[in-house]
Amino acid sequence: MRIARIAQPSGMSFAVLEGEGPGATAAEIEGHPFAQIKLTGQRWALEDVRLLAPILPSKVVCIGRNYTDHAAELGNEVPKEPLIFLKPSTSVIGPSEAIRLPAVADQVEHEAELAVVIGLHGARGLDREAAKSAIYGYTCANDVTARDIQRQDVQFTRAKGFDSFCPIGPWIETSPEVDMADAEVRCEVNGEVRQLGSTKDMVFDPAAIVAYISQVMTLLPGDVVLTGTPAGVGPLQAGETVSVSIAGIGTLSNKVVPSE
Amino acid sequence: MRIARIAQPSGMSFAVLEGEGPGATAAEIEGHPFAQIKLTGQRWALEDVRLLAPILPSKVVCIGRNYTDHAAELGNEVPKEPLIFLKPSTSVIGPSEAIRLPAVADQVEHEAELAVVIGLHGARGLDREAAKSAIYGYTCANDVTARDIQRQDVQFTRAKGFDSFCPIGPWIETSPEVDMADAEVRCEVNGEVRQLGSTKDMVFDPAAIVAYISQVMTLLPGDVVLTGTPAGVGPLQAGETVSVSIAGIGTLSNKVVPSE
Repeated sequence: MRIARIAQPSGMSFAVLEGEGPGATAAEIEGHPFAQIKLTGQRWALEDVRLLAPILPSKVVCIGRNYTDHAAELGNEVPKEPLIFLKPSTSVIGPSEAIRLPAVADQVEHEAELAVVIGLHGARGLDREAAKSAIYGYTCANDVTARDIQRQDVQFTRAKGFDSFCPIGPWIETSPEVDMADAEVRCEVNGEVRQLGSTKDMVFDPAAIVAYISQVMTLLPGDVVLTGTPAGVGPLQAGETVSVSIAGIGTLSNKVVPSE
Repeated sequence: MRIARIAQPSGMSFAVLEGEGPGATAAEIEGHPFAQIKLTGQRWALEDVRLLAPILPSKVVCIGRNYTDHAAELGNEVPKEPLIFLKPSTSVIGPSEAIRLPAVADQVEHEAELAVVIGLHGARGLDREAAKSAIYGYTCANDVTARDIQRQDVQFTRAKGFDSFCPIGPWIETSPEVDMADAEVRCEVNGEVRQLGSTKDMVFDPAAIVAYISQVMTLLPGDVVLTGTPAGVGPLQAGETVSVSIAGIGTLSNKVVPSE
């Protein structure tokens, strides 16, 4: 099932997306989508609503160097344990919102990633098996990074924490049938392929990552975990459009604009 | 004015603390304390309520190496710009709650810090002067850190992000008369002084720090900024009580307990 958060004529709602193409609709959910889903009966054509970030997480936990080829391209070794860092919740934007290039950064890069959304019961002190059940669904994310600042600061926080540096969406895919063990992860800039990998090349898979994080910090319902990026990261310029596509989920596209 | 968040006989509230010693009371605030404060008329003896973390921030932004003597004791240089990192909101606890030592950490240390609480209008893209007005008040914080994990990971997130690793409190001091330009910052473990410094020795002062962060990420109302620790950081053992005292604010005490 595809769960979206939408701006509709009378406000904002969670919605179940139904159908594909011109006939697709958004069926409004009463309240939040984490437990039993109850529809209000309101329905809009998908083209008449605006897709927002599908969730507003209390925190975004990320994993670095989780694909061997990407670790290598930045001259890093693959870590023995997941390398975790945080992006602030204020960096989250939705599909169609713009990535703003900060005036202080010279080299802002895309990082296409599979994102995990945590379900109703959160995750605390879980093993790998229990962590599987803590996953509500999956979406696409772009771990936008100011590479020059990342090198300068060592700590990743500033380089990866600017407002608009965490696009997520376009929706959360919750179907257990959708296989995330070998899903293509693709990043295109203005239609040109820049990153092309598969989740099968992850060093730590989503359940292992969620388990590991849950041993450190409690993951709350709706928290988002970014699972690392494959090789091919590269610069974004104002005026370009960057798209992250994950097989079985969909495509998250964002325009890149100069600083205000 | 001292603003606290309290557990009282019928629930949780923000409160204005009035008086000192045995006659001190907590006067309940209607809703949140950020704009005009309106009291409900409910009042309890301070000894009949429990002080909670005075705010539940959407994020906790921290500054590393902001006192020359502490940077030196860990073998680091003072940075040219504030070095920022994040602690997850799930690490926040209040006064009297326990710091839990994680089983995976061998060396958990205290870091006494002055904490800034952001006010109603948040902070985005501010200069130093405007940042001053964005500060709602001050409280005490302990930037609890697993030093062995910090060394191992390089990224600070895991070492500083465990649940219970961010005690804040006991209340927010909002009076503009309270001078934070030269306030004593003291850390005691079981009554023995471990850290003793003054905010006058900060490399970057609170307004400069808030301005700097606000150029990167939007600070939301209630967000908390930790301003760095003076020299004297050292280990905590299960069974000890660690206290952070800041002149003009008060004392934040937490027991240290083993992992669950």
